[in-house]
Amino acid sequence: MASHGTDVVLLSVGSDLPYFTGYEAMPTERLTVLVVPADGEPVLVVPELEAPRVVPGDFETRVWSETDDPVLLAAQAAGKVESAAVGDHMWSAFLVAFQDLWPHVRWSAASNLTKALRIRKEPAEIEALRQAAHGVDRVMGRIPGEVRFSGRTELELSRRIAAMTMEEGHGTVDFAMVGSGPNGASPHHEPGDRVIGEGDLVVCDFGGRMSGYHSDSTRTFSVGPPAPDQVEVHRLVLDANRAGVAAVAPGVRSQDVDRAARKVITDAGYGEHFIHRTGHGIGLEVHEHPYMVEGNETVLAEGMTFSVEPGIYLPGRFGVRIEDIVACGSDGADVLNRSDRALVVVE
Amino acid sequence: MASHGTDVVLLSVGSDLPYFTGYEAMPTERLTVLVVPADGEPVLVVPELEAPRVVPGDFETRVWSETDDPVLLAAQAAGKVESAAVGDHMWSAFLVAFQDLWPHVRWSAASNLTKALRIRKEPAEIEALRQAAHGVDRVMGRIPGEVRFSGRTELELSRRIAAMTMEEGHGTVDFAMVGSGPNGASPHHEPGDRVIGEGDLVVCDFGGRMSGYHSDSTRTFSVGPPAPDQVEVHRLVLDANRAGVAAVAPGVRSQDVDRAARKVITDAGYGEHFIHRTGHGIGLEVHEHPYMVEGNETVLAEGMTFSVEPGIYLPGRFGVRIEDIVACGSDGADVLNRSDRALVVVE
Repeated sequence: MASHGTDVVLLSVGSDLPYFTGYEAMPTERLTVLVVPADGEPVLVVPELEAPRVVPGDFETRVWSETDDPVLLAAQAAGKVESAAVGDHMWSAFLVAFQDLWPHVRWSAASNLTKALRIRKEPAEIEALRQAAHGVDRVMGRIPGEVRFSGRTELELSRRIAAMTMEEGHGTVDFAMVGSGPNGASPHHEPGDRVIGEGDLVVCDFGGRMSGYHSDSTRTFSVGPPAPDQVEVHRLVLDANRAGVAAVAPGVRSQDVDRAARKVITDAGYGEHFIHRTGHGIGLEVHEHPYMVEGNETVLAEGMTFSVEPGIYLPGRFGVRIEDIVACGSDGADVLNRSDRALVVVE
Repeated sequence: MASHGTDVVLLSVGSDLPYFTGYEAMPTERLTVLVVPADGEPVLVVPELEAPRVVPGDFETRVWSETDDPVLLAAQAAGKVESAAVGDHMWSAFLVAFQDLWPHVRWSAASNLTKALRIRKEPAEIEALRQAAHGVDRVMGRIPGEVRFSGRTELELSRRIAAMTMEEGHGTVDFAMVGSGPNGASPHHEPGDRVIGEGDLVVCDFGGRMSGYHSDSTRTFSVGPPAPDQVEVHRLVLDANRAGVAAVAPGVRSQDVDRAARKVITDAGYGEHFIHRTGHGIGLEVHEHPYMVEGNETVLAEGMTFSVEPGIYLPGRFGVRIEDIVACGSDGADVLNRSDRALVVVE
């Protein structure tokens, strides 16, 4: 904070707060905020009815009741402020309220400060990510034997996959994307009423949290035997996934992982159909630093964890994505996901 | 916007955006924002990989690819701006980015503008809330016959209730709070490993979304026959719930609903143990305007929908809360929840 010239950091919803305190703010209109002054002790300002959830830590707790003004309370705890950093996910309505109270303060995003601390994971964090990855791997392994695709809607499949993910030990399921046939060409397709049929490729991308850490994996299944163009595109995406993983090593720039995966797809003439970055960091959040994207020169280091997930999306036809979570090890990628990456045929 | 002196409204995550456009932004680090200039056509700035999800409407869509700057794109769409309103839930990191680009703009919360439009529900919205309420009512009705409490952990119960809520037609379950015995005295208790036993009161507060609209209901169950003090406190909370509901009518101030419910509890000597407001508005968000809280002079009008949920929390002992969603009708409350409010004994 001193080297950044920041007088106070304000952390609310999002994962910086649990990272530092073990306490997660509820995302509601009742403000919870940890006030971290550069000089002085941190103060957690918390609604009275949520105070029983707080486990005491290296901070003072100040409770506000329903008719108090939590922004005023937090400002009092901060003392004199010229420059403040705000947690990336704090609701803007609260930031506007702080700014009304402090019209001359300079603001920045807290992730400029916290990124350096959080981007390299401790061994225990990597182990938690590995366990979460193995949880979704077990679901992927069960799908061909237990889940019938043909005749089911995407939404039915999504719910079934979510339930299996809970059965396999997740505490929450945050998304269970199922994009079938032409819907697979929409990378963030919302599972709907489309009935899956023979000849469809189905992109299944799901994840959640286990012990606080996220999983996120994608496999593409073929309902019945795949057509030659489906096999070709799947093969390309798998090669791109392998190329991205192979590029991972300490000292490599994040954008180089993207370039390695993208080159395979571009060289085969499908470059315009790979419409997203190759990956995102993962940890307490499902998307966090570092991002594997052109222009990001963040140098990889041991302990960084992120996805490698190239895809090809052919509008009106089908899509393919293959996503693994990897940890950057001392001499290359430690791939946390272990489920089959082949184009598995399902019924 | 003209009467508020607002040049542009920026809507991102949260329910203002789907209220106006039918499109819901994904809560990620990729900015989606509807730019609504006072003079000119609205522009939806959306990440390329989410563009296929957008259903065209009364706005222009501008797609940004992974290496573009969406804040710059949105600023260009806004034109010349002196005063801007930002959606309450937009991530602060994005607001800080807009402020870096526009250092002299005055900011306010968009809810100052949208509240007046959203606070009174259309008949179809009330009907959607009623259907969602009946969904959780059916779960409440099934609980005594189908769910065994004794010997189960809170977490097991929470998961069972969540699954039943999905079975009863919800699209999502957003929370399934189970607070047993002394944990019931923590109004927002996180369900955990405590094993429920004979003699416990158990506060069950759950809800989610059906067709986009929220449910939220609380009942308190007794595991085996309740003790006299448990019966007394439950009776009081039920009386307070009835008094709050009876106070609802057009022309009444929001704080008067709180006062009516609170008076019952305060008069009986438990005032210090009713540690939260009496209720919150509900609709596309589970908590929205109007809030039933001391100091809120918002006058109720036909079509406003909100919870009435008094509670008594006795630290180290137990808690009781009884929550119903009501719609303000032309001459009083239309209570949407219909499940049994008695202290139902379960096994």
